[in-house]
Amino acid sequence: MPENAGRPGRQDLKGEKKMELVKGVRQTETLELGELLAEGMCGKTVKVNGAVHTIRDMGNVAFIILRKREGLVQCVYEEGVSGFDLKVVKEADTVCVEGELTRSDKAPGGVEIRLGKLEVLSSPAEPMPLKISKWKLDTSLEAKLNYRPISLRNIRERAKFKIQEGIVRGFRDFLYEQGFTEIHTPKIGAKSAEGGANLFRLDYFHRPAVLQQSPQFYKQMMVGVFDRVFETAPVFRAEKHNTKRHLNEYTSLDFEMGYIDGFEDLMAMETGFLQYTMKLLAEKYDRELKLLGVELPKTEEIPAVRFDEIKRLVAEKYDRKIRNPFDLEPEEEGLISRYAKEEWDADFVFVTHYPSKKRPFYAMDDPEDPTYTLSFDLLFRGMEITTGGQRIHDYNSLLEKMEKRGMTDEGMEQYLSAFKHGMPPHGGLGIGMERLTMKLLGEDNVRETTLFPRDLSRLEP
Amino acid sequence: MPENAGRPGRQDLKGEKKMELVKGVRQTETLELGELLAEGMCGKTVKVNGAVHTIRDMGNVAFIILRKREGLVQCVYEEGVSGFDLKVVKEADTVCVEGELTRSDKAPGGVEIRLGKLEVLSSPAEPMPLKISKWKLDTSLEAKLNYRPISLRNIRERAKFKIQEGIVRGFRDFLYEQGFTEIHTPKIGAKSAEGGANLFRLDYFHRPAVLQQSPQFYKQMMVGVFDRVFETAPVFRAEKHNTKRHLNEYTSLDFEMGYIDGFEDLMAMETGFLQYTMKLLAEKYDRELKLLGVELPKTEEIPAVRFDEIKRLVAEKYDRKIRNPFDLEPEEEGLISRYAKEEWDADFVFVTHYPSKKRPFYAMDDPEDPTYTLSFDLLFRGMEITTGGQRIHDYNSLLEKMEKRGMTDEGMEQYLSAFKHGMPPHGGLGIGMERLTMKLLGEDNVRETTLFPRDLSRLEP
Repeated sequence: MPENAGRPGRQDLKGEKKMELVKGVRQTETLELGELLAEGMCGKTVKVNGAVHTIRDMGNVAFIILRKREGLVQCVYEEGVSGFDLKVVKEADTVCVEGELTRSDKAPGGVEIRLGKLEVLSSPAEPMPLKISKWKLDTSLEAKLNYRPISLRNIRERAKFKIQEGIVRGFRDFLYEQGFTEIHTPKIGAKSAEGGANLFRLDYFHRPAVLQQSPQFYKQMMVGVFDRVFETAPVFRAEKHNTKRHLNEYTSLDFEMGYIDGFEDLMAMETGFLQYTMKLLAEKYDRELKLLGVELPKTEEIPAVRFDEIKRLVAEKYDRKIRNPFDLEPEEEGLISRYAKEEWDADFVFVTHYPSKKRPFYAMDDPEDPTYTLSFDLLFRGMEITTGGQRIHDYNSLLEKMEKRGMTDEGMEQYLSAFKHGMPPHGGLGIGMERLTMKLLGEDNVRETTLFPRDLSRLEP
Repeated sequence: MPENAGRPGRQDLKGEKKMELVKGVRQTETLELGELLAEGMCGKTVKVNGAVHTIRDMGNVAFIILRKREGLVQCVYEEGVSGFDLKVVKEADTVCVEGELTRSDKAPGGVEIRLGKLEVLSSPAEPMPLKISKWKLDTSLEAKLNYRPISLRNIRERAKFKIQEGIVRGFRDFLYEQGFTEIHTPKIGAKSAEGGANLFRLDYFHRPAVLQQSPQFYKQMMVGVFDRVFETAPVFRAEKHNTKRHLNEYTSLDFEMGYIDGFEDLMAMETGFLQYTMKLLAEKYDRELKLLGVELPKTEEIPAVRFDEIKRLVAEKYDRKIRNPFDLEPEEEGLISRYAKEEWDADFVFVTHYPSKKRPFYAMDDPEDPTYTLSFDLLFRGMEITTGGQRIHDYNSLLEKMEKRGMTDEGMEQYLSAFKHGMPPHGGLGIGMERLTMKLLGEDNVRETTLFPRDLSRLEP
């Protein structure tokens, strides 16, 4: 066996030796931004790769800005000093450069590289369709989406999705800490939890199948196994909405927990998640928050108010008629958030006890008044980002509720069997990842915070 | 504003007060297993909830074993001492108990609860269809899958999926550390990366659409944005295989990285992931590893050997004819792993330089011999768990390869546009989560390590 190798070269594999040993990740020669900005680096010769974000040619001197995953690096080309011809490099090339790292107050991060060598790794076939090096991409949402792989190279555009990563990471890390188990449930099924017309249908080896609207049935079944479970996965809704807030496929952050004393435990857990995540964002995603000028919302205390009560309060304060006491209009969601901000200085507000007829069959009705349920929505700056609540855990009560709604148990045998064989009191919620990101960043269209949106008209890229 | 609240009661919300403040997660009265096993707990009165896993009635004394998310807790009922009638409780009830925690050498974890009070939280409607409290569920895989929400309550069955959680967690945490960004890409699309017949098709608002077989196109496009990206999400394959190793929907652990020097960097990164994850499992999933008697494989060094070379070595050693020099039969995968174990004491083995015609159009051919590609599979104990490799990054080379294969660019304009406008040298891989779990746990059917499998005949639960 050869003694050293780590990263076998093609030659090695072709030559005498039968095999090479891969020993894991090794330090690369090229440095990332964090490494360049570390103490004591100035004066050293560094090697860095990246995409040529922009070139500013000043005659004898040129600034070549490299785009790296952590941000921008300024490189200085000096005619006669740098060991290459400026003409060899153009915007959107990817390159590997070498030079001395020097202090520079005007450069991003306070350092720049005085270029010695430059190697072009790849070149574009055509010039950019969008000026991605601009601070703000002043183009329509439509154009941004049409050129998605290009427009995302703008550093503010991509920062949105770095923050989105932080949200999902916060969700998982917080729930691990709280004793939850992560699950992966199937997206193709025979039946979906909410049923109805809003399902994408497909042929599954000559059997009718649907894409899951939510992991509802699965996460409930898994409460009987792990007590507390969560999933972060796509859900599919064939809704014919064409609004700024609807997507036909989105990522849902779902959890479900057993042995609850009431749905209040769920709101407490969600508040805990928001607190944890805002802290994580402040600590680890500071660069992106600054790039986008985001101020994190307060999450120490989130007001919770009954559905009927807040409808009344809003009607009173804003002189509005209550047209339908059992539903919230989108405009009312806006007013509730406005009320919460004005009266309680709150960006988030829980609205509790939604009317039973607006909730699915598995929602637990309030024993004190079965017109309402033990459930809630979380509104964030005028938009619903969460629906949650306590579920029925008693088998016979579940059958009764289904019967009352004229449902049959066809295709639900397995779901019902979990209840037939004992389930603890439980509840859960789902959070729309893209909506939460949207509201956090102050965007007005959910497509701005969706990597590759799917809507009525958009199926690509 | 009310001063204290945290968890508003229903009464509060109905009463005088307009709203209550939710302040985040609060310590519960009931204890989890880890808390019970902490130093200095013995002698204290504790409150614990859980599902009644089994009851052993010995006459004046009975042992009630509670199933909690972290394991089992033994409770002792003593007639005349415990303040309730044993008859009120039965298997599969969920309960909340109170009693003195005492040392007991024979109990799991070395402690038991001498029951004072017991409150039944919920009761099953029917007795269990499977004896889930047995150490091993001695029932067929078929029965286990038919009663999935029940069979998973067996502590060894559920432990498999706790370990699966650890694998996915290790993948993400390792890649965060290595500068990767997590992405969420759409599963419904106009076109899929591998194309061909193995696609699930659906109607998307009167347009033909498919379910993605892999996030290939998306993760490549995102290399141009974040350099290094990963995704852990479902993929869909309408393959008519009916084997122990195929699923029609599975969770794929994908990454893609830019600025690589060769596909060897990808193997190094995967080896790093395996090293990180085995360490994580040993540290945080020790309980489950013990429950299942799993010995973790060695990952310090993983041999890498060329496709043509290992075919030759295996043919020689096991006296086999090479029928097709450009393909691996499943039996050969088994023999390669056997060879790696016998000759190199390795559980994992990278097979490199797969024939070009067995790889998709985007695979980079070896410039030294374009019959082969700069790609690899990772075999683990006789089974392919990863396919990966370097991709073509040059726009014109990509068009050429597509043309050679008789492909048009229809539906691929956006994917191609990423290359047209510059992409770094890059590559990536995909790992089958269920297969990796299966092989790690020594299972012989991938359905054993799939929460709710989807195959030719199974669409529920």
